Amino acid sequence: MESLFALSNGHLGMRGNLDEGEPVDQQGTYLSGFFEHHPLPYAEGGYGYPESGQTIVNVTNGKLIRLLVDDEPFDMRYGEVVSHERVLDLRAGTLRRETEWVSPAGRRVVVRSTRLVSLTHRAVAAIEYEVEPVDGPARVIVQSQLVANETPPEVDDGDPRVAAALQDPLAAVSQDVEQDGAILLHRTRTSGLLVAAGMDHDIECPHQYEVEHEAREDWARTTVVTVLQPGERLRVVKNVAYGWSGTRSEHALRDQVAAALTSARYAGWDSLVRDQRAYLDDFWGSADVEVDGDPILQQAVRFCLFQVLQAGARAEGRAIGAKALTGTGYNGHTFWDVEGFVLPVLVMTAPGAAADALRWRASTLDLARARAATLGLAGAAFPWRTIQGEETSAYWPAGTAAFHLNAVVARAFEYYRLTTGDDSLDRECGAEVLVETARLWMSLGHHDRSGAWHVQGVTGPDEYTAVIDDNVFTNLMAARNLRSADATCERNPDIAVALGVDDDEREAWRAAAAAVHIPYDAELGVHPQCEGFTRYGEWDFHDGETRYPLMLHAPYFQLYRKQVVKQADLVLAMHWCGEEFTAKDKAWNLDYYERRTVRDSSLSACTQAVMCAEVGHLDLAHAYLHEAALVDLRDLQGNTDQGLHIASSAGAWTALVDGFGGMRERGDQLCVAPALPASVTRLAFRVLWHGMAVQVEATHDEVTCTLLSGNGEGMSMQVYDEEVLVRAGQPVTRPVQRREPLLPAPPQPVGRTPRPAGRDPLSVARSAS
Amino acid sequence: MESLFALSNGHLGMRGNLDEGEPVDQQGTYLSGFFEHHPLPYAEGGYGYPESGQTIVNVTNGKLIRLLVDDEPFDMRYGEVVSHERVLDLRAGTLRRETEWVSPAGRRVVVRSTRLVSLTHRAVAAIEYEVEPVDGPARVIVQSQLVANETPPEVDDGDPRVAAALQDPLAAVSQDVEQDGAILLHRTRTSGLLVAAGMDHDIECPHQYEVEHEAREDWARTTVVTVLQPGERLRVVKNVAYGWSGTRSEHALRDQVAAALTSARYAGWDSLVRDQRAYLDDFWGSADVEVDGDPILQQAVRFCLFQVLQAGARAEGRAIGAKALTGTGYNGHTFWDVEGFVLPVLVMTAPGAAADALRWRASTLDLARARAATLGLAGAAFPWRTIQGEETSAYWPAGTAAFHLNAVVARAFEYYRLTTGDDSLDRECGAEVLVETARLWMSLGHHDRSGAWHVQGVTGPDEYTAVIDDNVFTNLMAARNLRSADATCERNPDIAVALGVDDDEREAWRAAAAAVHIPYDAELGVHPQCEGFTRYGEWDFHDGETRYPLMLHAPYFQLYRKQVVKQADLVLAMHWCGEEFTAKDKAWNLDYYERRTVRDSSLSACTQAVMCAEVGHLDLAHAYLHEAALVDLRDLQGNTDQGLHIASSAGAWTALVDGFGGMRERGDQLCVAPALPASVTRLAFRVLWHGMAVQVEATHDEVTCTLLSGNGEGMSMQVYDEEVLVRAGQPVTRPVQRREPLLPAPPQPVGRTPRPAGRDPLSVARSAS
Repeated sequence: MESLFALSNGHLGMRGNLDEGEPVDQQGTYLSGFFEHHPLPYAEGGYGYPESGQTIVNVTNGKLIRLLVDDEPFDMRYGEVVSHERVLDLRAGTLRRETEWVSPAGRRVVVRSTRLVSLTHRAVAAIEYEVEPVDGPARVIVQSQLVANETPPEVDDGDPRVAAALQDPLAAVSQDVEQDGAILLHRTRTSGLLVAAGMDHDIECPHQYEVEHEAREDWARTTVVTVLQPGERLRVVKNVAYGWSGTRSEHALRDQVAAALTSARYAGWDSLVRDQRAYLDDFWGSADVEVDGDPILQQAVRFCLFQVLQAGARAEGRAIGAKALTGTGYNGHTFWDVEGFVLPVLVMTAPGAAADALRWRASTLDLARARAATLGLAGAAFPWRTIQGEETSAYWPAGTAAFHLNAVVARAFEYYRLTTGDDSLDRECGAEVLVETARLWMSLGHHDRSGAWHVQGVTGPDEYTAVIDDNVFTNLMAARNLRSADATCERNPDIAVALGVDDDEREAWRAAAAAVHIPYDAELGVHPQCEGFTRYGEWDFHDGETRYPLMLHAPYFQLYRKQVVKQADLVLAMHWCGEEFTAKDKAWNLDYYERRTVRDSSLSACTQAVMCAEVGHLDLAHAYLHEAALVDLRDLQGNTDQGLHIASSAGAWTALVDGFGGMRERGDQLCVAPALPASVTRLAFRVLWHGMAVQVEATHDEVTCTLLSGNGEGMSMQVYDEEVLVRAGQPVTRPVQRREPLLPAPPQPVGRTPRPAGRDPLSVARSAS
Repeated sequence: MESLFALSNGHLGMRGNLDEGEPVDQQGTYLSGFFEHHPLPYAEGGYGYPESGQTIVNVTNGKLIRLLVDDEPFDMRYGEVVSHERVLDLRAGTLRRETEWVSPAGRRVVVRSTRLVSLTHRAVAAIEYEVEPVDGPARVIVQSQLVANETPPEVDDGDPRVAAALQDPLAAVSQDVEQDGAILLHRTRTSGLLVAAGMDHDIECPHQYEVEHEAREDWARTTVVTVLQPGERLRVVKNVAYGWSGTRSEHALRDQVAAALTSARYAGWDSLVRDQRAYLDDFWGSADVEVDGDPILQQAVRFCLFQVLQAGARAEGRAIGAKALTGTGYNGHTFWDVEGFVLPVLVMTAPGAAADALRWRASTLDLARARAATLGLAGAAFPWRTIQGEETSAYWPAGTAAFHLNAVVARAFEYYRLTTGDDSLDRECGAEVLVETARLWMSLGHHDRSGAWHVQGVTGPDEYTAVIDDNVFTNLMAARNLRSADATCERNPDIAVALGVDDDEREAWRAAAAAVHIPYDAELGVHPQCEGFTRYGEWDFHDGETRYPLMLHAPYFQLYRKQVVKQADLVLAMHWCGEEFTAKDKAWNLDYYERRTVRDSSLSACTQAVMCAEVGHLDLAHAYLHEAALVDLRDLQGNTDQGLHIASSAGAWTALVDGFGGMRERGDQLCVAPALPASVTRLAFRVLWHGMAVQVEATHDEVTCTLLSGNGEGMSMQVYDEEVLVRAGQPVTRPVQRREPLLPAPPQPVGRTPRPAGRDPLSVARSAS
């Protein structure tokens, strides 16, 4: 619940902890980019191994509002909970809570709160808190707090060094009691980052009340005490503001937080709520997805899209973590899945946020160049996992060796440019990223004696096969990276000159891309995901004891040498580089890999959904879509407590839009080819394309494309390979074309059949209660 | 010097620390198999990763004898050293020292000591210590000591956990002052092993003297004080005895050490010295190697052979470490190089020691079976590095994945059986090892769709290429392992039944061995050392900045995917499985791999020497032989301070005997085919074969085989493929057959040409002074 009810604007995130702090699984308040160092230990080290880790820090908790009713603490573990409801309102951008409770002494009260992390005031969160006695007078004490150095979370991999770094991570710098609250400053002990947290309060009470403000090193407290009659309410609006910096002075940071509080108080609660809704109305207006006939999926996809927005909306120059700001899983690190899965969704729904995330990546180019040099490579090698930009992956076969990340970053820049039509980011930093990653690929690959270009000894998306040769996904993406770099130099000759790119270098890029080796097993008629893969031994799924995820029950050694696939790899290549495969390739390859893919990563179901839909296995696609969309609402990976799976959430949108909607981008043209499974009666989705909002609406019979906003010339797009022009007020409708599969729907490994699509919307409500 | 002057009997080892303790690099007294645990940390862990390490412990120091001359400590860093000589006597098995020293106050004394670690009294070391004033009377105080928990060594990989485990590793158990000395008992804090160390003294002095004995928790001291006139000597004979156990009681261990001291005292110093020499006379009588024309090599090879004997002589049921008992390098672990390189030498020179080492390996079968089960494999998987038998390798691509170790263990058992003609070890435990390793291979390999048998995802001897498919060395050795297991079941049907081996299982072994896939690059006419190797990118040796060892200057990632070879791999296959390669294969392959092998392991030069000699590059072989033989005497790897390279020492013998002697074993027949480089005028070596001692003596003209001891029937052997019968008193002489190389001698990577064979014997004497 704490992860599912997390609120964030991409800069400030708050887990859905209860107002009163307990019962709690993990307290969590996070600031994007704010981290502590910890040592990375190796029993057997190696050259180039990162020595310093980075881990997200739970900063000063500003959510906490404790309540005492007649001197008894309001705690749902004691007394009697008559009713309790929490509502995450995706349209309002708020978390509402209403609890009716009878104290152990028998006093009945209702507590209502509404919490928001402002999408319009980046540094600010606010809470409206009301308490009302029901059956008699009550003395009510409200303690609103800031608390630093709360009990640290349990770290998922149990590394005692990370735990040590998170034990009292914040050294107190200063405490100031202000007129209506307090400001606390702390500094991380090793990374030396300064954080300021402040609160102020607006109190409404029908009677006289008393207020006290106190501050100590690790806490500040505003206490309100009064006596209420039944039906009377004490209302406290608490504004909370945060700031952090590695460079600004203490004084500057204190002022910054004070200003944010002033600004929020000046706007007032109603205005914060109104602005929040307006921001989201704008978002949903061009991004909403409607799925008729499957209410669970409808709710889940909207939840997913809301979380993707929360992850990126105001990150502004900081990395988006794999869990965004919803928990400490993966230590708060960002991975390739942000560029690969999250940004393509943001590009089409909140392109400004996508541009900011890409700017963050580009801002780490110097670190990436240094990393490449350490590895004996040219250009720039972006880190497999990081918060600030340094490589912090401690197991290189599934970290540093996964160089495909760099081509995925390059793709994200191109995706942004082609989808938005905005060339400015390319000129600002994208071209440089494309050139430096192209240089990386040239130093990674080589031409063999017959001229073919190989990339050897790398790891592809499937982490159950590592340090292998000619991974199809990697090679195709590398070739595209090289071509994109060549093209941007063509577009931006001045930048090419500034980066020292000459004709010979560009010719070498084109030659490598043209000669890229793509292994193919002619005997089986399928692509091995890497050289030799289809000749590996098979995993024994039939021993009746297969336990998942395999990596917790079998050594890497066994996983690596068998035909067992953790997550879509060749199948992902068929999605992202679809033009490189024939329809028959896609059908045969999908059939081959479906039987061997165990989906031990949450980043697989969404891609399998897209490709199953493309080859015509619509019911299987539907099942995978449920798995992707419900990964957190149903806790399908068993670790939602560590934070949400943002990339899978984004993938759910992609599975729906690219899968059932058949959406692809070809160059600068949007293409759709909807096909719905029997149980979905209607699908409508909206995307932004070159600044225009377009809606695609499909039933089993016809598809209609409508321009919601845009210029007068309208938008040229493809519907089932037919080019159409969609103008404002002139929707285009075409009959649906069915997809007939070439092969029957394939089976999955034992125990890994996706669950059949559920039909009970209450189960969602229950899981979210 | 401390490593070079180390004395050991395989059970007890003492570094060549000075009697007076200082100056010192690393204090070292080791008991084979005595270790402490330490945690193995992983920043990113994985299933099946070993969690507990083992590290050799510097036990109670019994070598220490401090001297005060007129109250000034005898310390060669102060005063004046007039002369100082230390002699490691390979024939006597002693370390002698004579130092003439003038104290800061001007008193001149001579100190003489002789130290031995007894080869006949396994628990005992003894020191004869004499001090004699030269130029005037001196008050002399001798403090003979036992000291526990000395300053721990610097750990080579700097792991703070190992350092922590070695900080005060011994908890005091008891201290007893005996009549002429003391006994101290300690226990390791985590592994819980008990160690007892005792000393007693026999004192000769021309005058009255006083003696005191004291004991504290971590030290015991016997002090002798007297006044000597010039020319008078104080002589102290110190017997030291050790015992350790994980099971025996404190009382039993104390008694055991007291008994060892009594036995040594009863024998007396002269008898200990006499027995030591007799033991070595016997050894050299059937093991000596003579090299005329190259005095450096002559001395170095004898030194190497002496060290191999010291490593294994009395290990008796404990592992032989890669550094034996000469230092703490590799934490005292044993590796495959003991079975692969050390045991074949011991089999031919001290077969009883070889049998004991093999018994140790067999005694760990249950641990190896458990490890295989953890890895999801059948049979037994021996550990890559261990002291007690558990896998303690923390980097699996260069540890657990190096399964060839198991075939090398199997080979060692077969080598022992075929060389000694002794079947009893096979019945006692060898057959079980062969069967369990065969089962391991069957679970590691698989038949592909065309029937070929592959072993994929393993690491061969070359650690610069890891987790690869169909390593030629591994596959050939695995096939041999399978055939050996089949053959032992044929020989020992009762054991086969007891182990549950049926005809189907044996048939499967034979089928796999017959279908083993050996990659071959027909375009180049060479064997890739693993599938695809000859299509990897080339290492850039021409950048003028290549620094060795490469692993300290480049990431594994780069090393693994390039055609750069750390140590002989395919070339080792050509040595150990020579019958699988044609003469042309050998010439072409050697030419190919010589250009790509950087010898960053000390385990490479010896094998390269053998194969260079076989294909006729005799001068190159000679240069490699020097490198192997002088690895420690010249500190060629720069880490002799951490202990001697025992496997390289053994390899030097092999390089000489298998290289220039052309010795091979074919089934149960010994074959020789000598060929000497120009500068070596005569080579003579002696080996034990089926209980017979035979000498092979070669010049540039002829080769003579002489039976030194054996039965009346004589010995059938091959000389240049001719079968001859050698009887006592009837040497066989044949003319030398020249080896004409098919190709010119190949170059090596930049900076890795072996040094030309030196000709200055003084340089050895200097390095050993």
